[in-house]
Amino acid sequence: MNRMLRIVAITGMPGAGKSTAAQALVKKGWKRVVMGDVIRAETKRRGLEPDAKNTGDVMRLLRKDRGESAVAELCLDAITKMGAEKVVVDGIRSMAEVETFRKRADVLLVAVDASPARRFELLKERGRRDDPFSREMFEQRDLRELGVGIGEAIALAEETVSNEHTTPANLEAEIAEVVERWEKNVSH
Amino acid sequence: MNRMLRIVAITGMPGAGKSTAAQALVKKGWKRVVMGDVIRAETKRRGLEPDAKNTGDVMRLLRKDRGESAVAELCLDAITKMGAEKVVVDGIRSMAEVETFRKRADVLLVAVDASPARRFELLKERGRRDDPFSREMFEQRDLRELGVGIGEAIALAEETVSNEHTTPANLEAEIAEVVERWEKNVSH
Repeated sequence: MNRMLRIVAITGMPGAGKSTAAQALVKKGWKRVVMGDVIRAETKRRGLEPDAKNTGDVMRLLRKDRGESAVAELCLDAITKMGAEKVVVDGIRSMAEVETFRKRADVLLVAVDASPARRFELLKERGRRDDPFSREMFEQRDLRELGVGIGEAIALAEETVSNEHTTPANLEAEIAEVVERWEKNVSH
Repeated sequence: MNRMLRIVAITGMPGAGKSTAAQALVKKGWKRVVMGDVIRAETKRRGLEPDAKNTGDVMRLLRKDRGESAVAELCLDAITKMGAEKVVVDGIRSMAEVETFRKRADVLLVAVDASPARRFELLKERGRRDDPFSREMFEQRDLRELGVGIGEAIALAEETVSNEHTTPANLEAEIAEVVERWEKNVSH
């Protein structure tokens, strides 16, 4: 294990507020790696347009060829290239990914939670091209994430932060506090 | 749907603090139904000692014979007999169970979360005969619960309450607040 590497691994259902949580740490000097971006980069590297279909296909191919932790391995490559010592990884989807990070770093697994109703509203507001807008697409996306094992990662998180009745500023403050407490306890 | 029935359905990994959360509502006049108790009663009804092995066997048999929502159906029978209108159901293990309750009542699904390390300590302190004490038994029990689909119920909860850095009194206050807010919004 690289004893100097600390990873805050953020999981949560689509729209729960993972990026807002990660942003709180970026403001404190942490480097951010978005697992979805790593897949998008890999999709481009393969000469494909990184749209929802192609990135989904590449993710499935990666997992099929290299196992459940394939995306986590790509993230670790990116982290090594960056030379960063404090990294927030945004978009954990399974415990297999968490275990991969644990082999190389001290890891704090944080779940950001919000109700399906609130996540649907937040995704609608966000309106990113590859975000679903219909209730049906939203539910299918939830099921896809659950199928990869995100429910287990959420259930086994070391810290859980609710984004249900709060503001982005308060969510950021809570994440910052949780991580500060953890850093005091990490034995190096 | 029985428009007069309100159910607060509590999910969470073993040791997370579900009973403490349920207790907060009992103090407010809610009736409590423990899904584990319902299985224990069914085990006795079948002339078996309700130990960990037999209750596990009966649960698996029930689910095999009557489907994933078998235990929820037994709970609904118990609730009907009680004639209660406000019930907290302690021990939701899957979304199938939640959907079963939703057919008959207004339901708020609440997840109580705590880290594996904290849950292990809380279970050790509790020391109930059928609670595991070794780390290995603890992890096996976690995997068993996750295998039934508890991760999905936690991921899809409408409210999440963290029991990580709090006291039983504060956890109780938070649950009471969450439920009070919900009751104001339930349209009857």
